[in-house]
Amino acid sequence: MRPVDLIIRKRDGAELSEEEIEFLVQGIARGEIPDYQAAAFLMAVVCRGMSNAETACLTRAMIRSGEVIDLSRVGGPLVDKHSTGGVGDKVSLPLAPLAAACGLRVPMMSGRSLGHTGGTLDKLESIPGYRTDLPPARFAEGIERIGFAMIGQSDTVVPADRRLYALRDVTGTVESVPLITASILSKKFAEGASALVFDVKTGSGAFMQRPEQARELAVSLVRAAGELGRRAAALITDMDQPLGRTVGNFLEVEEAVGCLQGRGPADLEALTLRLAGWMLALGGLCPDPDEGERIARTRLADGSAWRRFLANVEFQGGDVQALLDPRRSPRARLSRPVTTPAEGYVRRVDARAIGVAGVVLGAGRLRKEDRVLPGVGITLVKVRGDRVRANDEVAVVHADDEARLEEARRLVAGAYSYADEPPPDYPLVIEEIAGP
Amino acid sequence: MRPVDLIIRKRDGAELSEEEIEFLVQGIARGEIPDYQAAAFLMAVVCRGMSNAETACLTRAMIRSGEVIDLSRVGGPLVDKHSTGGVGDKVSLPLAPLAAACGLRVPMMSGRSLGHTGGTLDKLESIPGYRTDLPPARFAEGIERIGFAMIGQSDTVVPADRRLYALRDVTGTVESVPLITASILSKKFAEGASALVFDVKTGSGAFMQRPEQARELAVSLVRAAGELGRRAAALITDMDQPLGRTVGNFLEVEEAVGCLQGRGPADLEALTLRLAGWMLALGGLCPDPDEGERIARTRLADGSAWRRFLANVEFQGGDVQALLDPRRSPRARLSRPVTTPAEGYVRRVDARAIGVAGVVLGAGRLRKEDRVLPGVGITLVKVRGDRVRANDEVAVVHADDEARLEEARRLVAGAYSYADEPPPDYPLVIEEIAGP
Repeated sequence: MRPVDLIIRKRDGAELSEEEIEFLVQGIARGEIPDYQAAAFLMAVVCRGMSNAETACLTRAMIRSGEVIDLSRVGGPLVDKHSTGGVGDKVSLPLAPLAAACGLRVPMMSGRSLGHTGGTLDKLESIPGYRTDLPPARFAEGIERIGFAMIGQSDTVVPADRRLYALRDVTGTVESVPLITASILSKKFAEGASALVFDVKTGSGAFMQRPEQARELAVSLVRAAGELGRRAAALITDMDQPLGRTVGNFLEVEEAVGCLQGRGPADLEALTLRLAGWMLALGGLCPDPDEGERIARTRLADGSAWRRFLANVEFQGGDVQALLDPRRSPRARLSRPVTTPAEGYVRRVDARAIGVAGVVLGAGRLRKEDRVLPGVGITLVKVRGDRVRANDEVAVVHADDEARLEEARRLVAGAYSYADEPPPDYPLVIEEIAGP
Repeated sequence: MRPVDLIIRKRDGAELSEEEIEFLVQGIARGEIPDYQAAAFLMAVVCRGMSNAETACLTRAMIRSGEVIDLSRVGGPLVDKHSTGGVGDKVSLPLAPLAAACGLRVPMMSGRSLGHTGGTLDKLESIPGYRTDLPPARFAEGIERIGFAMIGQSDTVVPADRRLYALRDVTGTVESVPLITASILSKKFAEGASALVFDVKTGSGAFMQRPEQARELAVSLVRAAGELGRRAAALITDMDQPLGRTVGNFLEVEEAVGCLQGRGPADLEALTLRLAGWMLALGGLCPDPDEGERIARTRLADGSAWRRFLANVEFQGGDVQALLDPRRSPRARLSRPVTTPAEGYVRRVDARAIGVAGVVLGAGRLRKEDRVLPGVGITLVKVRGDRVRANDEVAVVHADDEARLEEARRLVAGAYSYADEPPPDYPLVIEEIAGP
């Protein structure tokens, strides 16, 4: 087998076999196939696509490129959630302990903030002392004892994904549904999940801005998971405005804590419950997501999810007092409001613009090597549909220095648009796609 | 400007500007853009294509990547011919002196044999002493004194083409009409030609096997040359059977000499005269190719083309006696015939199979670094349409060793197919495409 012949076959639209894809992926992962051939292959995939069978082969080959975390000893249904990323998307924080409180085992491997989107690892690490670099045995122990644990991707799991992603980033080959599908699935299945729910975001703050793009990815994720013999479902959800009322690392932790204590906000609680309902159904603990949602609602109300969260923070080295005592929490040095120009209704809060303001403040990062600040961010006082009068406070910006504060305030003010009439209602969950 | 953004634009089907293409080509030529980005760009071009304007920009940028040979001092219309390559295609050898004898200046830069196709440089170098590595000043002097000179591509002319071709060869991006067009045009115009006729071959022995592929390339070459302000025309010609009666380096030189002495063969003479007619018309020496063909016929008949050829061989260091005295010519050690199995008509002589037999004998090469042998090759005694009886000699194979002789005889025997009835006539020149 010669790489160039396989590149030509893919270029001409042929379907590659399991052996051919395995040969390419291992060659790329081991550095035996040079970058220029890998790049040509990736561009051919972007242009010609891949069948579900090819996507499943690619996922399997990527999983085989590295270590697979063995969670056989933890027992119970291993179910995880993956979000394609957005602004203010802190769902993982209340969802993992809630699903665990309902009887699932949740092996959660998360990512970091990049560009305008936030990252679960950065949010968790804003809790003083919290460690996300647990070794595999400690990760398994956390899942066994508390029902869930939260880690970042290690160098040993799916090394092919690191090599491929670094190359895709510089060769214009990121935007490919089969490549994205294989990247997501390989990491989730290598971390030990046996069923998965996907939260595929769409709207200005999402990676897939148009609903039809989000739908294509959602269908691909569910079908490829099915080809791999795993249960899966996907929810297409709105990311045209930020989720919840906060954007920023510790600000979002606090909001997640509020949600776990039954204090909302409504959109965060609704999405968390719906995703938990699907996780319970996929894990076989109930017949359908509606029943799962009812079970989850009781576990949220009785405080068991909140207690699991505290147990996890303690297990992963975090300072529980920082969550309980506001005086010990990370805080930005400066806070200043953004106000309305005139009266009316909030027509839209542009998620992407809010995300960019978060990056300006230092809550997110533009380059992988940048560090993020724990306390900075944005509190949304008014959101879509809210009635406002002139000079009402619509948001508060929290910053560590004056220059970034003012730049972010301008961006946040620009993210708000107004109308004389209330805007129509948009659904938070746009569509649900169940697997086979 | 970032390379990745331009790759993405091309991937999404956008038309790149002159500045954008210039940036990419110079970056690639200078090694500032890494191979993996160049490879992704090339694959995006293969998949999404390029407009005529983009192809012209690419050609200009490639010309600007290196030295341009200045032939302003030689005077007279500078017209060249380019063939896409085939089996037994020795047209350049009689054509260049013929066009020169008619008053044109022919700056001919040729290639070497690769795969089953022959190369003009290898044929010329089979004349003992003949040098194709003339420095630019000596090249210009040859054109000035004799009307034509023959060289290979130097390292300094269109270096971007060498870098791109090496990468295309290993990344499955050879088969692209705009990339092939820019590669051909940039070299021809950098060598100093101001008008061009293209001989685009089609059939089993050609690079573009199907007529519609050949037509697409022919139209692209003529249109892009027009965008560059040069006169051009393309002939689509048959390469389903070899051109003439010989395949092999010195064998083809001898056949070219025969053609220059008015001894045919008919197909070689007809194509040489037609291409010369087009060159004269494009060079402005006559109103149309029919008139040009009449002029060329008189120059072939009066021996002036033959005298120009001898003058060129002497000028480029070749041994003229090897052309005049068969005892001094390079000869293969062994010659053995291939015979017919039964009586009938020759239905087809498969050009590709004959070309492969030539490679087996050592007349051609599979890798750039292989050396070729001067005397070996194949003489076609019978060609398409000829009547044969059982055990007639249809071809003679000339080899330097027994093993290669027998392997080549098998291939040559397999290249011939027979029928009870004579096959229909095929035209040699399938279509002529004139520029704007």
